[in-house]
Amino acid sequence: MSYSRRGFLTAVGTTGGAGALFATMGALGLAPTAEAMTRTAFTPPQPSDFTLTGRGAKKVVVLGAGVAGLATAYELGKAGYDCTVLEALDRVGGRNWTIRGGDRITELDGSTQISRFSEGVYMNAGPARLAQWMVTMDYCRELGVPLEVFTNSNAQSYIFNEAAGMTAPVRWRTAKSDVYGYISELLSTATDSGALDAKLTAQDKERLISFLRGFGAIGTKANGFAYTGGERRGHSVDPGAGEQPGTVLGPVPSLSDVLASGVGQRFSFEFGYDQAMLMFQPVGGMDSIPKAIAAAVGKEKILLRSKVTKITDLADGVEVEYQDKNGRTRKIKADFCVATMPPHILAKTPHNLGPDVQAALSMPTVTSSGKIGLEYRRRWWEIDENIYGGVTNTDLDLSVMWYPSYGYGTRRGLVIGYYHNGANADSYAALPHPQREKRAIEQGMKIHGAKYRDELASSVSVAWKLQPHIEGAWVGWPSRTGGYQLLNKPAGHVHFAGDWLSYMIAWQAGALESARKTVTDLHKRVLTH
Amino acid sequence: MSYSRRGFLTAVGTTGGAGALFATMGALGLAPTAEAMTRTAFTPPQPSDFTLTGRGAKKVVVLGAGVAGLATAYELGKAGYDCTVLEALDRVGGRNWTIRGGDRITELDGSTQISRFSEGVYMNAGPARLAQWMVTMDYCRELGVPLEVFTNSNAQSYIFNEAAGMTAPVRWRTAKSDVYGYISELLSTATDSGALDAKLTAQDKERLISFLRGFGAIGTKANGFAYTGGERRGHSVDPGAGEQPGTVLGPVPSLSDVLASGVGQRFSFEFGYDQAMLMFQPVGGMDSIPKAIAAAVGKEKILLRSKVTKITDLADGVEVEYQDKNGRTRKIKADFCVATMPPHILAKTPHNLGPDVQAALSMPTVTSSGKIGLEYRRRWWEIDENIYGGVTNTDLDLSVMWYPSYGYGTRRGLVIGYYHNGANADSYAALPHPQREKRAIEQGMKIHGAKYRDELASSVSVAWKLQPHIEGAWVGWPSRTGGYQLLNKPAGHVHFAGDWLSYMIAWQAGALESARKTVTDLHKRVLTH
Repeated sequence: MSYSRRGFLTAVGTTGGAGALFATMGALGLAPTAEAMTRTAFTPPQPSDFTLTGRGAKKVVVLGAGVAGLATAYELGKAGYDCTVLEALDRVGGRNWTIRGGDRITELDGSTQISRFSEGVYMNAGPARLAQWMVTMDYCRELGVPLEVFTNSNAQSYIFNEAAGMTAPVRWRTAKSDVYGYISELLSTATDSGALDAKLTAQDKERLISFLRGFGAIGTKANGFAYTGGERRGHSVDPGAGEQPGTVLGPVPSLSDVLASGVGQRFSFEFGYDQAMLMFQPVGGMDSIPKAIAAAVGKEKILLRSKVTKITDLADGVEVEYQDKNGRTRKIKADFCVATMPPHILAKTPHNLGPDVQAALSMPTVTSSGKIGLEYRRRWWEIDENIYGGVTNTDLDLSVMWYPSYGYGTRRGLVIGYYHNGANADSYAALPHPQREKRAIEQGMKIHGAKYRDELASSVSVAWKLQPHIEGAWVGWPSRTGGYQLLNKPAGHVHFAGDWLSYMIAWQAGALESARKTVTDLHKRVLTH
Repeated sequence: MSYSRRGFLTAVGTTGGAGALFATMGALGLAPTAEAMTRTAFTPPQPSDFTLTGRGAKKVVVLGAGVAGLATAYELGKAGYDCTVLEALDRVGGRNWTIRGGDRITELDGSTQISRFSEGVYMNAGPARLAQWMVTMDYCRELGVPLEVFTNSNAQSYIFNEAAGMTAPVRWRTAKSDVYGYISELLSTATDSGALDAKLTAQDKERLISFLRGFGAIGTKANGFAYTGGERRGHSVDPGAGEQPGTVLGPVPSLSDVLASGVGQRFSFEFGYDQAMLMFQPVGGMDSIPKAIAAAVGKEKILLRSKVTKITDLADGVEVEYQDKNGRTRKIKADFCVATMPPHILAKTPHNLGPDVQAALSMPTVTSSGKIGLEYRRRWWEIDENIYGGVTNTDLDLSVMWYPSYGYGTRRGLVIGYYHNGANADSYAALPHPQREKRAIEQGMKIHGAKYRDELASSVSVAWKLQPHIEGAWVGWPSRTGGYQLLNKPAGHVHFAGDWLSYMIAWQAGALESARKTVTDLHKRVLTH
């Protein structure tokens, strides 16, 4: 989309006014309203679909009460499908897990932490942020889940690249000022010298330099377009009253030092379609979402602590065997099954769906990820450092540190001390919790000093590959052909759903979109047979 | 501050661990804790200041119950000063004014709007955002005022420069992707061609190009470092489930078109020390702040609808004449007076403080500003356009449009349809409210189409220069010497305070810092005489 299609549109605008102009833009696909309708269309099944076609609602057994499973039961339930959801854990949500005081975190080897978080303090161990364009926002609206901003970036938080030789963290605002300043100085110089004349007209050059002057807060041509710092870096003494104009933070490091520090490499994270601010979270914990869906489904339809032990596709339906909360083996028969467990867990579950399905389920690679929640007795990040939320980004093994996006100005608060994946996650997962805490604190002290150790109240860590019935943070497909395509179709009476069957892996939106797709497929099948 | 001082600090780090390293950094002024202590130190007056010195608390009359006046009475009150606050309006807060359903907005000519906003809908007509480093955040903590994010920028909101020939708004994320992409392409090309060899070493060049590859999401050298769009622009079809990888928004406008559109000129707003995200607001309305201070001061000490008519400095104190809420002229005598009314209002108030003070009060130039609050029956910006908060920036006479930073996902919501100052504010102020609304809607339809008109429920506009007893949005000093310095000192027993006596004019933090300074000055004077 070009920002200007003057020939046609300006003419319309002149004669028809803004309304006519806008309507024309809409017809051309240029108008924001048209642009915004980017999500896959979905019509939930309706009771009238059955009454009008003379068909009856079917019985469906849903495997897993994570976001995909719950959404499947919720959407099918709108038309009156008789759904039963089997869930191995003693809670709904799956990886959507909010840990509060008193909660137990048990890992595969049986080791258990008991959270000592204070009242009102929580940690979203799994998903923690929603992008505005994601369907998750629609579910929050539909279910009345209140939202607030998740602080995915903050000019006041830090960047610290230890391996690049940085000896102190630098605030994002300072790093940005320096990088944008120097690249503006360089590009203005090159442009003005004629080095880019092959790419730029005289008018382009003028406009570009005008832009760079403001973008980098750089000097005039007479001053060599020099970047020499400024208020965007921050202040060592803030502007105040009377004779206190403030002191701008300085001195400015050299261009070479800024490039060597690698701070600029951190910027693009926040440009991504799925990570750009504004991001959101439910008020009070991410598990508000699965709890709200579960309430809409009806708690009596969700069997917790019920681990699936066998899936048998039958000529006329499906039979699922599971171990109930009392350890007894039970069977449930249904017309259809929607399996939403992670593929690597499904692959360990006996079934008769054939070797191709089994091969497909074994195909994705499982990614490790871990988080530690550190509760502090005092919000030193707010009081001492003027950091209210946001992310500090590092090359340390903690990867990133998150300051809480809720409870600003209150007494206690919870910092995510690490959120990492891959090798870093594996190395922390290999440690017992007290050693994870110790290591996280040692690393974090490089950013925040001794108070990071001294003011700690308690902590909890989650290593996703060690969580029973989940055993991983998310998966990756080697290819989107073959197995991925196979599992996006039913195997007999068994359908599949989950973020792993979407192009938004590791996002709840992927689970929700996949549930919608599977619900649509299943409902069409019921209505056309 | 350089990001690296390897010679010394790495040595310390090696031998003493992170704690020792950090302590050393602190001593050098490099550590974040040291860096964060940027605000002017302030110790509130204490009762013990009197008991220990054998002095008694004095009587102080404070003129104006805006943020500066309230903070003055609050801080003096901590030591037991006997304060009376005179306020001409029928509410506290001054320019900190939150308008809700039922509120009346009366202008100088007597014309009155009565707000029809729904329950829970409000408009912060004056200050609306707090930066994290501002002392206002500390007052919110101290007074228990809960905070939430003010959405000062949003990748999903728009830029629209009509005069530059744009015929449709473009989302911030799209504009940033294009501008950052093209400047990265240009600077990589210039760097690689050797055009900047006078400024860059071989290692600098390598690091710079590596940075630009990620910053602009551009191609390799073999591809001419070309910017060709990508997912950062957004999607015309979002990634979804199954066979829905999503469709990246395209086509990408040419470099010339992007430069001509001027979209990049909007970016630097959010780099400013006082405007960079994260920004904050009190939950439920900005007037939570003055209300909380007023409650701490004691409502019985604040006389509303009490307009100051004369200030007389006496040999042993001060006498203030005012018209009380019943229209009767009254006098109050005190040891000191702190005048916090706007300087141009003070200049119209008879006093005996002398011609220099009068000249100083007349010196600042008054700036106009206006806002319109548009309540909609439906949150179309969220539902249709996936915009949850943020600012749309334009070259239209509306200047900027704000989407609400509260009530996400609820039914109704309030858009700030314009927030402008100077000539734009004056031209809207000259219209009666219905015409302001009509014009704002016509302009806003260029961004949002017919629903911007059709779904409107009600509106309220404030033109600050027409607000009785305030008559302006903020002031500017031609110079910080002379009059500014004079009024930052007492005139007899009359002290002054207000954002206009700070380097943070138009910010509540300026009023608060000025109040703290004046309280300190006054208290020192009392304790040393």
